[in-house]
Amino acid sequence: MDRTMTHPLRRYMPVFDWGRTYDRKAFSNDMIAAVIVTIMLIPQSLAYALLAGLPPEAGIYASIAPIVLYALFGTSRALAVGPVAVVSLLTASAIGQVAEQGTAGYAIAALTLAFLSGGFLVLMGVFRLGFLANFLSHPVIAGFITASGILIATSQLKHILGVSAHGHTLPEILLAIGAHLNEVNWITVIIGATATAFLFWVRKGLKPFLTRLGASATMADIATKAGPVVAVVGTTVAVWAFDLAGQGVKIVGEVPQSLPPLTLPGFSLDLLQALLVPAILISIIGFVESVSVAQTLAAKKRQCINPDQELIGLGAANLGAAFTGGYPVTGGFARSVVNFDAGAETPAAGAFTAIGLAIAAVSLTPLVFFLPNATLAATIIVAVLSLVDLSILKKTWAYSRADFTAVAATIVLTLTLGVEVGVAAGVITSVLLHLYKTSRPHVAEVGRVPGSEHFRNILRHEVETDPRVLCLRVDESLYFVNARFLEDLIQSRVIEGCSIAHVVLMFSAVNEVDYSALESLEAVNARLKDMDVGLHLSEVKGPVMDRLKRSHLIDDLNGQIFLSQNDAWTTLADHPRAAAE
Amino acid sequence: MDRTMTHPLRRYMPVFDWGRTYDRKAFSNDMIAAVIVTIMLIPQSLAYALLAGLPPEAGIYASIAPIVLYALFGTSRALAVGPVAVVSLLTASAIGQVAEQGTAGYAIAALTLAFLSGGFLVLMGVFRLGFLANFLSHPVIAGFITASGILIATSQLKHILGVSAHGHTLPEILLAIGAHLNEVNWITVIIGATATAFLFWVRKGLKPFLTRLGASATMADIATKAGPVVAVVGTTVAVWAFDLAGQGVKIVGEVPQSLPPLTLPGFSLDLLQALLVPAILISIIGFVESVSVAQTLAAKKRQCINPDQELIGLGAANLGAAFTGGYPVTGGFARSVVNFDAGAETPAAGAFTAIGLAIAAVSLTPLVFFLPNATLAATIIVAVLSLVDLSILKKTWAYSRADFTAVAATIVLTLTLGVEVGVAAGVITSVLLHLYKTSRPHVAEVGRVPGSEHFRNILRHEVETDPRVLCLRVDESLYFVNARFLEDLIQSRVIEGCSIAHVVLMFSAVNEVDYSALESLEAVNARLKDMDVGLHLSEVKGPVMDRLKRSHLIDDLNGQIFLSQNDAWTTLADHPRAAAE
Repeated sequence: MDRTMTHPLRRYMPVFDWGRTYDRKAFSNDMIAAVIVTIMLIPQSLAYALLAGLPPEAGIYASIAPIVLYALFGTSRALAVGPVAVVSLLTASAIGQVAEQGTAGYAIAALTLAFLSGGFLVLMGVFRLGFLANFLSHPVIAGFITASGILIATSQLKHILGVSAHGHTLPEILLAIGAHLNEVNWITVIIGATATAFLFWVRKGLKPFLTRLGASATMADIATKAGPVVAVVGTTVAVWAFDLAGQGVKIVGEVPQSLPPLTLPGFSLDLLQALLVPAILISIIGFVESVSVAQTLAAKKRQCINPDQELIGLGAANLGAAFTGGYPVTGGFARSVVNFDAGAETPAAGAFTAIGLAIAAVSLTPLVFFLPNATLAATIIVAVLSLVDLSILKKTWAYSRADFTAVAATIVLTLTLGVEVGVAAGVITSVLLHLYKTSRPHVAEVGRVPGSEHFRNILRHEVETDPRVLCLRVDESLYFVNARFLEDLIQSRVIEGCSIAHVVLMFSAVNEVDYSALESLEAVNARLKDMDVGLHLSEVKGPVMDRLKRSHLIDDLNGQIFLSQNDAWTTLADHPRAAAE
Repeated sequence: MDRTMTHPLRRYMPVFDWGRTYDRKAFSNDMIAAVIVTIMLIPQSLAYALLAGLPPEAGIYASIAPIVLYALFGTSRALAVGPVAVVSLLTASAIGQVAEQGTAGYAIAALTLAFLSGGFLVLMGVFRLGFLANFLSHPVIAGFITASGILIATSQLKHILGVSAHGHTLPEILLAIGAHLNEVNWITVIIGATATAFLFWVRKGLKPFLTRLGASATMADIATKAGPVVAVVGTTVAVWAFDLAGQGVKIVGEVPQSLPPLTLPGFSLDLLQALLVPAILISIIGFVESVSVAQTLAAKKRQCINPDQELIGLGAANLGAAFTGGYPVTGGFARSVVNFDAGAETPAAGAFTAIGLAIAAVSLTPLVFFLPNATLAATIIVAVLSLVDLSILKKTWAYSRADFTAVAATIVLTLTLGVEVGVAAGVITSVLLHLYKTSRPHVAEVGRVPGSEHFRNILRHEVETDPRVLCLRVDESLYFVNARFLEDLIQSRVIEGCSIAHVVLMFSAVNEVDYSALESLEAVNARLKDMDVGLHLSEVKGPVMDRLKRSHLIDDLNGQIFLSQNDAWTTLADHPRAAAE
């Protein structure tokens, strides 16, 4: 990147950076992208609000101020911020535990959640704690997104069936729907099923169909994106024309015609405490999703994003949502890709989208009065099923059982015990499996490849060995989890091989020796000394050596430190006794 | 070791191994050791029972059956099993939460704790889960033992002062003692302070004193070990002769004259649930302490212990304690060293000690009727103060701030919030610090040392570089915690250096690539491909390569895999474009 981030204002507000070179061409590209994204966002915003259990306008409001704030503080030039499926699900799960859906308390809880989440993101950004997001491993995220997709799609079935059923886990949702099956509204089912089938066809079959009819690729693309709008208009008109609302079809109803209102989150200590953990979870998941989208898009134009600044951008967006009637938001994959493909050049495209949505909020909301909830549910189902990717199970199984275990645990526990338990279990499983893997490091006995200075595993290669010299290559950093393993290993190897007079530890792959490992090495050294066996180290890396020098190990070592394994071999295998003195 | 563990009976009961070669010389050595250890154990067992809040005989009973069972199942030839200070403290803390001291429920809770702990240890042994103990890093153990020593010594002050005061944390204990200062019994203080001073002098000053008087070293040693017995006899006689019990000096009182009784632990679900976590904690801490003692002693005779079999030995000992009126036990440092120094050759020495203690339990208990509790408290204080080692703070500070943090957190939290919170916080701190350290791995840009095949950090050495080829040596295994770090690093380096046409990752110190890191590498590969930059790997280890071959990365790699970094350099730096194809 050509910018130099010196002025603090430019450091925290990248808008002062790209804003200086903004020109007419960028403006017109941004405008075109904004129009396309606005049209796509209207039904999507209404639908995600429904998923979060909030009134439909909350989805629109959550797309206005957050977009503008992200444009000011964010570093990605194409990321589109707003309500997304997974965060909406997490929101419903979190605030469903503190308030009843449809009450004023529920909406305030949503604002509070956005406030906490925004505050947490900003703090993480200021203290540069973005690396914390790395504790969510890729398999855990993949498993979580897949399970969330299944949960979301299932939770929308009630709108398609026209019954009321609540639940936050797969068994709960299915049981609740099962218990209300006698209340199914068949007109709603017909609308919902038709809309779902239509949207699936638009997604999979429309483009080839139009192309066969001779339409240009661009035309076909635009038609595909307009699919949800067609479904919305079609079903709304049908409900209005045949007075289906009178037949029990649930509709969106009155949506206030207004710009985003000024709102205040709740500041009661109980509420803040109850929502803190979910807010942290939402922040981290939202951040991870957003950063990976932003990074992918930035790479395509050889641009960079700054993850710590992204935290501030997303945090500002969430704080904005908290004070303007929204709920937690993040950078969404679908909308960002559309924005990018439509040619957005700068975050100004986002600002123009916000203006488009504001106009819609003021003037278009009466048009969705007759829009059936079933259509919105169909939009959600079609969107989230693309998140469900069970192939991650197959891929991780082939690559590593540990990663497979983490994915499987995350999916199963998210579906059966809910999103929060699922993610927590996934993170804990990943950490424990990592510690387990490093707790039994690969240690190879090595010998010299004849005529060379290379040392290789004696089990895999024909190499020179000496029964008096035991050379072990340690293929792992040494720290508390595996310190005792090495201690036991050396002790048992030396006791088995009675003629051993020297042990050489080859440290080429040892990147760290922590205090536990240091004490283990000291214990090994003392025990080997008692047995009259020398302990030597070879190929110790600079940073590791710097640290070892601060301990007593080097002074007390019953042997030498060799720069290369070959030095060790030449010295010890030729004149072993002399070297130990 | 010369034994071959083939028969299952010999695998699980090492007694069939050493028992076959047992002879007269071993017998007489074991007998001598047993007599010395028995004399030392009588006051110690009474004292630790007092520390655990149990009647004095519980300490003796806990030293009989467990010793015999460990002799049958354990692998260390010198380890002496019985009540120890830290485990007694943990026992008091755990069962104090479910029952009132002095009640029948309290004793049953102690049996139940021993039962759960024994069961857990046996299960860990059968499933070979001994490595779990490694999660307790050396700094955490050192901090915990030191803090426990301080807590134990402070908790015994009440016996020296003759007041009643309960508490499980340092502030609690000090406040409780402060609140009862007006009740101090001055005769008790004189007995306690004299006994403490005498025992300190025996420990530090007696041996040089006797040596100056012309005594042999062996005589001086035996006299030192007999110190507690002298203190016990002296203060008991003083209390009896001057009827000090009538003056308010608390005494041991009646101890039943009996062999260990048959007892049953409690099996109520509530009790089991309440004690499960403390039992696991006690098991792991006891195991760690015991194994390190056993390993140190074994190394001195070039013997081996088997940690998984040790779990079974200690588990059997605890199950034995549960059914014979005892409480949780483990291998103690002091008694094991005495046993070893006294010449114990086989676990039979332990069995003879058990016989000695059984005789004491049947015949000698009336003799301790007038023994003041203050003397027992003095024994404990002098014993545990040798556990307190604050130098660990200084040592870890010098070696590594991360290890220092773990020690300091463990000490402070154990003292202020109690033993369980302290250990848990220590473990969590160690794990998080380890993850943090590996989350920002050392990545060095390397160049070739002129005229050689060695590659070194360009910041530390004068090396050959090529602006078109970026060579990065990754000094850490790649896994989810640091996957994104490398992703960001490569992306920003390539964008800074516009002329870069090739990135070579040198994997000589990469011991693992997990699925998250694989996906990051795939993302890096795809992004570099978009930028028309090649991605190459060099010096990939066998096990890592085996795994990468199971993924698509190798097939899709926009570059090559080189056996050595030098091959990569020769190929790319000379004909860079040709190589990318």
